Amino acid sequence: MAQPKYLTGDKAGIEEFIDKFDVPEVLEMLRSRGKQLVFVTNNSTKSRADYKKKFDKLGIPAKVDEVFGSSYSAAIYISRILSLPPPKNKVFVLGESGIEAELESENVPYVGGTDPSLRRDITPEDFAAIADGSMLDDDVGVVLSGLDFHVNYLKLAIAFAYLRRGAQFLATNTDSTLPMAHAFFPGAGSVGAPLVKAIGREALALGKPSQAMMDAIEGKFKVDREKTCMVGDRLNTDIQFGIEGKLGGTLMVCTGVNSKEDILGEGKPVVPAAYVDSLGDLMG
Amino acid sequence: MAQPKYLTGDKAGIEEFIDKFDVPEVLEMLRSRGKQLVFVTNNSTKSRADYKKKFDKLGIPAKVDEVFGSSYSAAIYISRILSLPPPKNKVFVLGESGIEAELESENVPYVGGTDPSLRRDITPEDFAAIADGSMLDDDVGVVLSGLDFHVNYLKLAIAFAYLRRGAQFLATNTDSTLPMAHAFFPGAGSVGAPLVKAIGREALALGKPSQAMMDAIEGKFKVDREKTCMVGDRLNTDIQFGIEGKLGGTLMVCTGVNSKEDILGEGKPVVPAAYVDSLGDLMG
Repeated sequence: MAQPKYLTGDKAGIEEFIDKFDVPEVLEMLRSRGKQLVFVTNNSTKSRADYKKKFDKLGIPAKVDEVFGSSYSAAIYISRILSLPPPKNKVFVLGESGIEAELESENVPYVGGTDPSLRRDITPEDFAAIADGSMLDDDVGVVLSGLDFHVNYLKLAIAFAYLRRGAQFLATNTDSTLPMAHAFFPGAGSVGAPLVKAIGREALALGKPSQAMMDAIEGKFKVDREKTCMVGDRLNTDIQFGIEGKLGGTLMVCTGVNSKEDILGEGKPVVPAAYVDSLGDLMG
Repeated sequence: MAQPKYLTGDKAGIEEFIDKFDVPEVLEMLRSRGKQLVFVTNNSTKSRADYKKKFDKLGIPAKVDEVFGSSYSAAIYISRILSLPPPKNKVFVLGESGIEAELESENVPYVGGTDPSLRRDITPEDFAAIADGSMLDDDVGVVLSGLDFHVNYLKLAIAFAYLRRGAQFLATNTDSTLPMAHAFFPGAGSVGAPLVKAIGREALALGKPSQAMMDAIEGKFKVDREKTCMVGDRLNTDIQFGIEGKLGGTLMVCTGVNSKEDILGEGKPVVPAAYVDSLGDLMG
């Protein structure tokens, strides 16, 4: 029988989640019992299709439609809820290609993102052209902030200028840190923090624990909330997401971001309905 | 009898302050009356020597020693107050050459800053080398965050790793915005906001309105606070700096960041002792 090890929900990459914890066996068991699986990730750098490729590489059968990422959640929110009238529906993206792919899947026009012309130092001419608006696109009505490994002052200055002109301020997610390489790095919420500080208000976040994401998942998968269990390792995203969504269950796996000490005892702010040391324990 | 001294704020650049409002004449008048002038700036990108060059170019007689910038304030704090025992006194700089110059003037060792090897994209190898510490300098005991026009994910990740290892967290200043080209851009506080968000605590700020800066100015210029007037255009830095420092006077010049509407009427959080429409009015 597989050795229990560690589970991260999704942490920085589903690859960690899968590599280490005999997750394939657990998922197979759940599928064999007729459970619908949805992989809910706040990682905005990858599209659902990118995740499908990852699953394929790891030998785990999964469909693109089972993946629900914060980029997709944001794209749906923009196209179906905000539903800004064209042409003022363009999005300035602070983030990577995963966001672009999901915006494309919802036919939302965008600028910024991985545009190579913005991957450079700001110049004195840029300051002037941002200030007088000649460098800005008049059709931008939304700034969408996510995890951007290519963040720079030029992109921040442009995004801030759009916000000052009244653009809606959205974030794929606001995780402060990104678990990676067995350490922590600045997360999407930290990458977008300059915009929050400069404009003086928070973005509307569309990843866990935002209930905008839960509503979108419910709409898409027709889930019965009472018969749904949220499994995850992070209290202030995964577990809070399930609790606020009034799901039938929340299961914390104590192998990732948070530990048992964070949930046992008095006065803990977020407490799951149940916990296991590792996901492999579900096989017992 | 000792004459009152004048401390002045400068917005983003002393050039704006000087270009527009007959400042040379006003400064000349003040000097002729025996006033000691101190130019107090939160702009950390320039050293005192850089400002002296700027003054020369503008035809204004000023000494390097009359300039007191947030970089210099931070350097003094690190060398004379923190006074960490070598070799654990090295500073990781998120900022420009002005900070480096002032650290050098106080013989404080540093890494980061304008190091060209950090002006690039983060790689998978970097994630691993930051996580295992092989890319980090064991002697770094302080992270100093300022305005960095070359901020990128790699530098933020390294700075965050030092903070997680227990480095002291300082900021030259925490201004949210930078007035420039008659518009607003992300300021030092916004550039450093990812670190604040990721580590979950604020930096100790050493620019206006921090009283650490006032104490350093008092120590250097032997000012009599009761006979000192703080002149500036920004309420939450300049004027608050003077009020918290219990200076004899605070004078707001209504030509910059804040306007009369921000100080007249009930319930205004920061109110100067006096205001003028422009500095030139002092000539009247």
